[in-house]
Amino acid sequence: MNYKAVGGMISRILLVEAALMMLPMAVALIYGESIVCFLIPIVLLALIGGIGVRLLHTDAKIYSREGFVIVALSWIFMSVAGCLPFMISGYIPSFADAFFETVSGFTTTGASILTDIEALPQGLLFWRSFTHWVGGMGVLVFVMAILPLSNIRSVHIMRAEVPGPTKSKLVPRMKNTASLLYKIYIVLTLVEIILLVLGGMPLYDALITAFGTAGTGGFSNRALSIGAYQSAYIDIVVGIFMLLFGVNFNLYYLILIGEVKNALKSEELRWYLGFVAVSTVAIALNIMSMYNGFIESLRYSFFQVSSIITTTGFSTADFNTWPSLSKVILLILMVVGGCAGSTGGGVKVSRIIIACKSIVREMRRLLHPRAVQPVKIDGCAIEKKDAHATMIYLVAFFFLCLSLFLIVCCDGYDLVTSGTAVLACVSNIGPGLEMVGPMGSFAAFSAPVKIALSFGMLLGRLEIFPIMMLFVPSTWRRT
Amino acid sequence: MNYKAVGGMISRILLVEAALMMLPMAVALIYGESIVCFLIPIVLLALIGGIGVRLLHTDAKIYSREGFVIVALSWIFMSVAGCLPFMISGYIPSFADAFFETVSGFTTTGASILTDIEALPQGLLFWRSFTHWVGGMGVLVFVMAILPLSNIRSVHIMRAEVPGPTKSKLVPRMKNTASLLYKIYIVLTLVEIILLVLGGMPLYDALITAFGTAGTGGFSNRALSIGAYQSAYIDIVVGIFMLLFGVNFNLYYLILIGEVKNALKSEELRWYLGFVAVSTVAIALNIMSMYNGFIESLRYSFFQVSSIITTTGFSTADFNTWPSLSKVILLILMVVGGCAGSTGGGVKVSRIIIACKSIVREMRRLLHPRAVQPVKIDGCAIEKKDAHATMIYLVAFFFLCLSLFLIVCCDGYDLVTSGTAVLACVSNIGPGLEMVGPMGSFAAFSAPVKIALSFGMLLGRLEIFPIMMLFVPSTWRRT
Repeated sequence: MNYKAVGGMISRILLVEAALMMLPMAVALIYGESIVCFLIPIVLLALIGGIGVRLLHTDAKIYSREGFVIVALSWIFMSVAGCLPFMISGYIPSFADAFFETVSGFTTTGASILTDIEALPQGLLFWRSFTHWVGGMGVLVFVMAILPLSNIRSVHIMRAEVPGPTKSKLVPRMKNTASLLYKIYIVLTLVEIILLVLGGMPLYDALITAFGTAGTGGFSNRALSIGAYQSAYIDIVVGIFMLLFGVNFNLYYLILIGEVKNALKSEELRWYLGFVAVSTVAIALNIMSMYNGFIESLRYSFFQVSSIITTTGFSTADFNTWPSLSKVILLILMVVGGCAGSTGGGVKVSRIIIACKSIVREMRRLLHPRAVQPVKIDGCAIEKKDAHATMIYLVAFFFLCLSLFLIVCCDGYDLVTSGTAVLACVSNIGPGLEMVGPMGSFAAFSAPVKIALSFGMLLGRLEIFPIMMLFVPSTWRRT
Repeated sequence: MNYKAVGGMISRILLVEAALMMLPMAVALIYGESIVCFLIPIVLLALIGGIGVRLLHTDAKIYSREGFVIVALSWIFMSVAGCLPFMISGYIPSFADAFFETVSGFTTTGASILTDIEALPQGLLFWRSFTHWVGGMGVLVFVMAILPLSNIRSVHIMRAEVPGPTKSKLVPRMKNTASLLYKIYIVLTLVEIILLVLGGMPLYDALITAFGTAGTGGFSNRALSIGAYQSAYIDIVVGIFMLLFGVNFNLYYLILIGEVKNALKSEELRWYLGFVAVSTVAIALNIMSMYNGFIESLRYSFFQVSSIITTTGFSTADFNTWPSLSKVILLILMVVGGCAGSTGGGVKVSRIIIACKSIVREMRRLLHPRAVQPVKIDGCAIEKKDAHATMIYLVAFFFLCLSLFLIVCCDGYDLVTSGTAVLACVSNIGPGLEMVGPMGSFAAFSAPVKIALSFGMLLGRLEIFPIMMLFVPSTWRRT
């Protein structure tokens, strides 16, 4: 382990966080609110980060091991620092609560311990939602885009932060890939803000909503979430933009360079849209009797399906009151999640495709042991070790959920509350069912359970292994 | 596909089933009950089986494909024929109900649609529990033991029926392995019967209980299951024997040939006993306030843990009323199941071991890409394709549960009822939670859901692929 390189990178991350916090401070200034809660952490972060950057060099040897540790520790430190404004302001005094809320923000989960969201000042609510936007595309990807790091170094960091089983680079240089990703991200966010404002949403709300959509986070500044606006237009805009942010960003790059046909041929995109279409229609039929006809039930069904498969977690209806079938469809979508290389969580559509094809391949192997083809996606064979790694990831995801389920159940709440709380956190969704349903909150859980769920969110966002590696002694051995 | 060979083997299975049905008929005679319900199926099976055996040769070419189809179809036909006594007698008039009950018997699930078990005549109850004993070790293993089949042929059939990721033969000849397995099985069953009778249980009840224990099935002739006897001695005997039948039978063979030390070294055995010990203590502590002290809560906890991890499903307490933590521990044990090569269901302890070690190995691979060791069990390296097949199996198991969950939820019962009903069936346990808890039944589900759950039990018992292959067109192509 190259401690200096790790320390150097983390110091830079803290400096970046100090810079990012100036935005909510500006918002607080505009609204005439106290800015002390932002000023103190900004000064602290600038000091610590500044000293770190002075003492430790950046472009030292970074290999995969360092990459994982940098990413895992950055996310943890960022979250600890990020909860200071909530604690200092006194709106979320307990550390477990503030940590939960901040991790939920950065990991774009959107699960909240707040019971009265609208009581918070605008600056804090802005920070809360801004963490979604920052965490969505990844802080380290952002740093990659602005820091002068050599290509070979940054590959290991990007690999650990960008979700999905296969990590393809858009362009040969990592730095350019990172900045391209952020440009697409910014443009899409801006378009959504404009469309929302055109639909009559106040600018502040439009910013908050767009941050939540872009990061597929789901924090809203309204207690009723998107349902508060009672506007079919806003439902549709947000519904479609959630879907757009759940798509692999590589496809937008393909479209930008004119390869629209290739982009639309993507198998993952087709499965993803297939899941959305089938689930939307099935749920709309299932809940039809609760609404005025099929069109209205389709509106609510589409929004919730889009919100859940992209793991955003906005809501326009209390799906906790829907029939069992609809709930189970949503539960399954919670596991599936968005596309690889998107801001969505879950296990990712591409892993589901690889899993299904591997199962079919296994049946072929058992039937005709001598004639087996590799699993293919978009016509390309998946390497054996990648297919194996995908299956291991799925099993690890499942084991992680079961382990957290055990911990959460110690609080004694019912199985559906506890189970969906775990899934909602690990898949980075936000709301679950029953007590943690779209109209509920995570407030009632005990502090240890909140901390455990926070780590569940981090494990889910960083795809399990980077965080787990922190607990392996060989990670820390000096090279 | 060699249709003649498949037909020939299935005909023999039906003849064997006719012979097996004579035992419950004898019981019915002893108790002075009507024997028509057994006589008609026996004559039918003898006729159909006899004609099949005459027309179709046995020892034709059987490869892995034929092996899978023989096993899958045998189990389906056996179950259809096996439900005739229930239907003819009028005690379970509907086909869906009778099929569910019979499949539940043969697959050693022990889930029941009966709401008043004690109303059934002794002959029928005997048949119901006898199917557990027959299905536990496998009908085809039994046929292998008595039929003069060449070694190479029978390997493919045994492989498809005996559970677990690695199928080791005890002795070079399959026929001898099969008969050895049955001898161990019979001796263990007899010892349990004797111990139960010595403890004051009526002989008839002892037979039924031993069948349920040996097959890890769980059908009882008492509404209160083993709890009806209110005897600590019986609880302990049944509890220990359930554990014994959940152990890999290879270990008994090792003990028989004097290699006791090697048997006790088995990693799977250690993990299995580890799961039992930890869960028993954790649950005992969790439920202590509900009973008179730790010793009593330990008694109930041990019995339920043993019953659930071995996927038997007997009960001495209504664990549906236990706290969430205890329920979740039991749910996790439901997934784990018994050891490979035992009569227990679930995904098997050895698959959990391979999965955990594969996850650790994956972390090592990510950290040090060039220095990775294969996964080892009992000091032997697991072949890459076997490790991969294990992970695929776990994912397939999980997908199967989710798909069935969708179907079962169409009946509109709550998520815990529907979810645990699926798990209880696919893992071949029997009771779940809420409506399908130890004091409940599967009676309320609709006929299509009952049929779907029946196929869930078959898929679980035969480890998914043999049944799924029936739906693949290439299986049926002529060779």
